[in-house]
Amino acid sequence: MTVKWEKHFNEKTKKRLILSTIGEMMLLASQQNALSLTAGEPYDLLYPSEALKRAFEKALNGNLVSHFSYSNERTGMYSLRKWIKEWMAQEGLLPSWVTEDHIFITSGSQEGLSFLTELFLTEGQTILVESPTYPEALLTFTKEGAQFLEVPLEEDGPNIEAFRNLLAREKISFFYTIVNYQNPTGYSTCTSKKKAILELAKEHDFLIIEDDPYHHLYYDAPPEKSYLALAGDDDRVIYLGSFSKIVAPGLRTGWIIAPEEVMGQLLKLRVLSTLCLQTLHQEALFNFLTETDMPSYLNSLRHTYKQHRDAMVEGLDAYVKPLGLTFQIPKGGFFIWGRIPQIKDMHHFAKYCIVEEKVAFIPGDIFFADPSKGRDTIRFSFAKTPPELAIEGCKRLGSALKKYLNGQK
Amino acid sequence: MTVKWEKHFNEKTKKRLILSTIGEMMLLASQQNALSLTAGEPYDLLYPSEALKRAFEKALNGNLVSHFSYSNERTGMYSLRKWIKEWMAQEGLLPSWVTEDHIFITSGSQEGLSFLTELFLTEGQTILVESPTYPEALLTFTKEGAQFLEVPLEEDGPNIEAFRNLLAREKISFFYTIVNYQNPTGYSTCTSKKKAILELAKEHDFLIIEDDPYHHLYYDAPPEKSYLALAGDDDRVIYLGSFSKIVAPGLRTGWIIAPEEVMGQLLKLRVLSTLCLQTLHQEALFNFLTETDMPSYLNSLRHTYKQHRDAMVEGLDAYVKPLGLTFQIPKGGFFIWGRIPQIKDMHHFAKYCIVEEKVAFIPGDIFFADPSKGRDTIRFSFAKTPPELAIEGCKRLGSALKKYLNGQK
Repeated sequence: MTVKWEKHFNEKTKKRLILSTIGEMMLLASQQNALSLTAGEPYDLLYPSEALKRAFEKALNGNLVSHFSYSNERTGMYSLRKWIKEWMAQEGLLPSWVTEDHIFITSGSQEGLSFLTELFLTEGQTILVESPTYPEALLTFTKEGAQFLEVPLEEDGPNIEAFRNLLAREKISFFYTIVNYQNPTGYSTCTSKKKAILELAKEHDFLIIEDDPYHHLYYDAPPEKSYLALAGDDDRVIYLGSFSKIVAPGLRTGWIIAPEEVMGQLLKLRVLSTLCLQTLHQEALFNFLTETDMPSYLNSLRHTYKQHRDAMVEGLDAYVKPLGLTFQIPKGGFFIWGRIPQIKDMHHFAKYCIVEEKVAFIPGDIFFADPSKGRDTIRFSFAKTPPELAIEGCKRLGSALKKYLNGQK
Repeated sequence: MTVKWEKHFNEKTKKRLILSTIGEMMLLASQQNALSLTAGEPYDLLYPSEALKRAFEKALNGNLVSHFSYSNERTGMYSLRKWIKEWMAQEGLLPSWVTEDHIFITSGSQEGLSFLTELFLTEGQTILVESPTYPEALLTFTKEGAQFLEVPLEEDGPNIEAFRNLLAREKISFFYTIVNYQNPTGYSTCTSKKKAILELAKEHDFLIIEDDPYHHLYYDAPPEKSYLALAGDDDRVIYLGSFSKIVAPGLRTGWIIAPEEVMGQLLKLRVLSTLCLQTLHQEALFNFLTETDMPSYLNSLRHTYKQHRDAMVEGLDAYVKPLGLTFQIPKGGFFIWGRIPQIKDMHHFAKYCIVEEKVAFIPGDIFFADPSKGRDTIRFSFAKTPPELAIEGCKRLGSALKKYLNGQK
């Protein structure tokens, strides 16, 4: 081996290409055979496996040559884009200008984020993110050289006063927001805050990237109107949707909604990144969507996840809250976000929990652009944890916390 | 619509993100219902559709939950990587250091090119490419800000004297080469030139990206040793393989072979670009590969493509060569590369042919980094054109050329 790779990688690779900590924590949890409250993934038993299998079989009985060729539908399969358009229109999420030609199918929302970053971000440019927010988004922005402003997120959305002050300080390219049942907080942005932020966006001419993968996973009332719909003819909102949380992440299918000018650029990126997408899974997904009673299917998902949430809340209330944990009950999504003020280094405690008590969660600091923040915060995922395991996990966490705090004294 | 998008796209998007001309020409050909000699795509009737269908059905009878979840095998499915490793080792293409852990599955070679560009290229940096070469590679490098040096490609590989002179002039980051039955020329690089270039690579410390999608499509003798194998312990060769031309492009499956240091960076790019790949098609492909007699399957592909090539050579000899076309008979791959010295603007002639005589090909200048080169060159693809259509296409081209040259007088 003769190559000195450090001399060949570019600066981006050497300095800004960073491995996801969530992946590392999940790996450690699985190696240690710990009860994992880490994963932002759907519950395996909820995958509509048999229906998807039939949907694939139907696609395999269709035009095979078209599935095995390069796809001409570079922005994604027409029938699937049309279905998405009609579904979202029915739910009142779309302004009138959106047609199926404004929908671009992606290999999950992560590809959408990566493409939008490529189009809009310039090295050294500032963007505004929620504090805390989704780490793989932060890492994607970081790779392309973003500088971050963080707006504190409250239970009903970003703090508007802080938002305004940040804008007064610096010009931003876009605001990235997970609008409903946010990862990691579980918080949603209310309509009045969305309207205020849209006003700011017009005034300061920045874009809004509205990431909405948890939209249908509400356990009380459905979400409020999207930024996209509220903006109407002001086409500065780019929306990211995903089937990963409500059908199956293994299908790697999400979508971007954007105006024509952006679609033209996305098409070029598609060609230069993968030429085209596969179509078999798109047709299978379309078959599944059209042959499923979606409202009742989504209802049953919500029913189960609500039970998972309730059990974890019960467990945390019983075993961890008395030791100092504070948290809000999320109204949807996969996550409970909390704070244990006595813990000064949640990473250290997280590893202790995995090794000593075989229970795993995600330390909260990784959700902040500024890594010195949130050292006492913690994210639990209840998605993959049925009630009895949620209770057991909280029991183990309580026991670990007791020992750990005693050890600190 | 209120957003002025030009103000929001970054410079890369505005200046360096370029639409593929091949795509445009293919679209125009199909709109005009022209006989198309444009596509670098396999012949539809050669897709092993029924075998692939069975391979998918078998995968669907396996562990569905694993296919519908996020994949933990971020570098690609282990069994597929292992199969590729053993297959390539058997064919003598691998140096001894390559294990399945040095194989990274991609969504086609285009994703491989895109990832390698992301890792190694810095805006403004110079790379060396064959002249002519694959335009989507040029566009991918251009997007990231590459400057190009072009080394003239001869029937047995790059001109070594020119290569040496270019290196004396400028430091390069890597040399991109399509080693066998190159797109667009059909030329292959011989062992002695590979050895000479490997020596230069050591001396000037640049990397070699060896793109080899046409490897198994030889119509005379099999290809010579790979750069990768010839380099041995000198790990500066990164190899790109693909199933697109020999199984089906719709599966979007290729692979990168690279040393451990590069694999670590590719893993991070995978997470930030799509989190993971789908696994269903990887398992289906694995099923197909293990249940097919690959040598005899590949033999039958070669048999058919050889007939396609021979018919097109016959047609060109009969109808176009007498009017001024010069070309070499390719020993493999999909393409015949030629020159019609009387044509000063092949783009203009190409459009004339589509509209007037309903026959389409790709004008050759788009295969050059310097767009002023190759204005009289032309690429034909014989892959998708069975003998009778090849003859008909050449007849139409001859007729168009006669009229066009008469019109020019």
